[in-house]
Amino acid sequence: MATVKLWTDSEIAAVPRLQAVFDDIRATRNSDFINNFWRALANQPDLLEQTWSRVKAVMIEPGTLDPLTKELIYIAVSATNSCTYCTHSHTAAARAKGLTEAQHAEFLAVLSMAAHTNSLANAMQIPVDPEFQIA
Amino acid sequence: MATVKLWTDSEIAAVPRLQAVFDDIRATRNSDFINNFWRALANQPDLLEQTWSRVKAVMIEPGTLDPLTKELIYIAVSATNSCTYCTHSHTAAARAKGLTEAQHAEFLAVLSMAAHTNSLANAMQIPVDPEFQIA
Amino acid sequence: MATVKLWTDSEIAAVPRLQAVFDDIRATRNSDFINNFWRALANQPDLLEQTWSRVKAVMIEPGTLDPLTKELIYIAVSATNSCTYCTHSHTAAARAKGLTEAQHAEFLAVLSMAAHTNSLANAMQIPVDPEFQIA
Amino acid sequence: MATVKLWTDSEIAAVPRLQAVFDDIRATRNSDFINNFWRALANQPDLLEQTWSRVKAVMIEPGTLDPLTKELIYIAVSATNSCTYCTHSHTAAARAKGLTEAQHAEFLAVLSMAAHTNSLANAMQIPVDPEFQIA
Amino acid sequence: MATVKLWTDSEIAAVPRLQAVFDDIRATRNSDFINNFWRALANQPDLLEQTWSRVKAVMIEPGTLDPLTKELIYIAVSATNSCTYCTHSHTAAARAKGLTEAQHAEFLAVLSMAAHTNSLANAMQIPVDPEFQIA
Amino acid sequence: MATVKLWTDSEIAAVPRLQAVFDDIRATRNSDFINNFWRALANQPDLLEQTWSRVKAVMIEPGTLDPLTKELIYIAVSATNSCTYCTHSHTAAARAKGLTEAQHAEFLAVLSMAAHTNSLANAMQIPVDPEFQIA
Repeated sequence: MATVKLWTDSEIAAVPRLQAVFDDIRATRNSDFINNFWRALANQPDLLEQTWSRVKAVMIEPGTLDPLTKELIYIAVSATNSCTYCTHSHTAAARAKGLTEAQHAEFLAVLSMAAHTNSLANAMQIPVDPEFQIA
Repeated sequence: MATVKLWTDSEIAAVPRLQAVFDDIRATRNSDFINNFWRALANQPDLLEQTWSRVKAVMIEPGTLDPLTKELIYIAVSATNSCTYCTHSHTAAARAKGLTEAQHAEFLAVLSMAAHTNSLANAMQIPVDPEFQIA
Repeated sequence: MATVKLWTDSEIAAVPRLQAVFDDIRATRNSDFINNFWRALANQPDLLEQTWSRVKAVMIEPGTLDPLTKELIYIAVSATNSCTYCTHSHTAAARAKGLTEAQHAEFLAVLSMAAHTNSLANAMQIPVDPEFQIA
Repeated sequence: MATVKLWTDSEIAAVPRLQAVFDDIRATRNSDFINNFWRALANQPDLLEQTWSRVKAVMIEPGTLDPLTKELIYIAVSATNSCTYCTHSHTAAARAKGLTEAQHAEFLAVLSMAAHTNSLANAMQIPVDPEFQIA
Repeated sequence: MATVKLWTDSEIAAVPRLQAVFDDIRATRNSDFINNFWRALANQPDLLEQTWSRVKAVMIEPGTLDPLTKELIYIAVSATNSCTYCTHSHTAAARAKGLTEAQHAEFLAVLSMAAHTNSLANAMQIPVDPEFQIA
Repeated sequence: MATVKLWTDSEIAAVPRLQAVFDDIRATRNSDFINNFWRALANQPDLLEQTWSRVKAVMIEPGTLDPLTKELIYIAVSATNSCTYCTHSHTAAARAKGLTEAQHAEFLAVLSMAAHTNSLANAMQIPVDPEFQIA
């Protein structure tokens, strides 16, 4: 179904630069499973390296937002962009990080509330209150 | 700039049904300020009542996600939908609920990371791994 | 605010091909007012002619959908695409074709209902029921 | 393919609160068939109740817009949001409410006309004419 | 999976107006293969004729942008709109027009860079510099 | 109008890490002008450094796509995402790189053609031809 080739483990193994990224993904995640996103991105080694390095920095290294909150933000963007792949992969990631059914239900309530008011604000072209502006 | 009339306090005061919602917004938020979204929605009393009642239930009543996390999800949807009004109003709301500069920076990093990988997944039409599917 | 020049009436008058389109817009709409969309499109005579000819065929010539229904569909697309200009111009057009406040309220209710369920269906990646498929 | 479980009739029957909504859907639509959207939403009883109650109020109860017009607005939003599920379900609903092939053709012409001019207005960032503004 | 019927060659052959368009597609592309987009659009003869005539004028007739550049613009819009069908068909078209793997990699880098900065500019609601404005 | 502070030159000068990026932007572009995007991103030093380093690598360093083609792809994404800021800044950038009026007209024709067919393909949910699929 893809517009690009998905690389198998043996094809990756033939290209040291790609193998290095796959090794790091496996080590960082402590799992042997590598999902299709990275197998597709292997067609573009530069983009593969840059994207993985950013995902590691943004999503995995500790910061001021907890890992589950970051996944919920990620799913919110992905569902709004109608990105089937990322919605699936980050919902799975959120579950792996402890998302409960009750939290998922609340997430869906906030997501659909935002979509509801976004459509109204866009249809009514409501001017931004001066109180909300910084610069 | 709007496609609808924005209702002033004195116009609201003339319609008991609208005044009741505005009274509840002020009491719930413990603030006299009512932003333009509600002044625009006053043209549609049913929608005003329904939307406020849902915002109160979803965004204000306590649940399993903390209030700041809900605001970040809300901004993520709004920015992705290019909703100028909601991006402004919910960034202000997040700040009022304690969003720090460091958290905002991390939020923007996650948001733009998601937009980046969404565009790649959509352009490459990557098939969803069976491991991610529930039903 | 535009990324292109907006053509004035005297600039249009100097180019017969453009003047012909502007004459037809005025005659068809029975109004002297020509909105900025056409003044911007005047930079691209081919696109101006093609777009006006399609707008006339699709939005103005009689068909099986009434003119107000067509405007509501147009606003629904425009608000969903966050198109400030088209949301304004087609809400004004709908009002000129008789849109009442009650109809506008109902339109906004349907629009926001659809945005609400779209976001849920995309976040839950609900499989399409076989009953809904034609081919 | 979903990110959530789809509830079967026997699972629904075990939860009175869910069964009550499913009973009302069947009674209101006068049909035994319940589509996947509601089976997915059953994971979130609050959202299920609130969404069904709104769909009933907005899409089914009589108002000033006729039922077919509401479905066309719904499809316009859904196609623009790239919502596969809602585009399918509401096109089926429109057909059930009498949509003819000629009307569908005209709908598609308006939809694609709007998408065409939206992209131009966004690319040219055309300023809104003062004549179109209300507030 | 479609919401409309896909027309077979023998069904097309029974309607001279449709057959004329299909003949022209085959002659113009110098290929017997006609993809599903046109088989779906055959339900709406007016839209079929108008869309094919525009595709021919815009995408096939020589102009100031080379054919491969036009396909890359087309894929950029389609991926951003989450249009599965058009992303597939125009990536195939770009390959047929000589797109190399290195060019595809660079295209994906630009696409995801734009998605990244778009989300930041929308989230921060950055005011447009006066230096960028024409009118 | 922004949701964040825009940094002035003297504020930047007080933070060596930010000043280093601004110095590099000026040197790379051979211009003293720094647009608001970077002044807003200065609130997030990590994101500023990472984004500028990627923009330099993707948009400025020579590759297999020429600089003007990259800008057209960028505008296509930005207009489709309704990103006012990026549409303005990259249309200006394209002009600085030699975009002619004739090329802009053709670009707008391709952009709106894609938006037109995307909306049709999404509304008709056309199945992807097997001929277009790679993996």
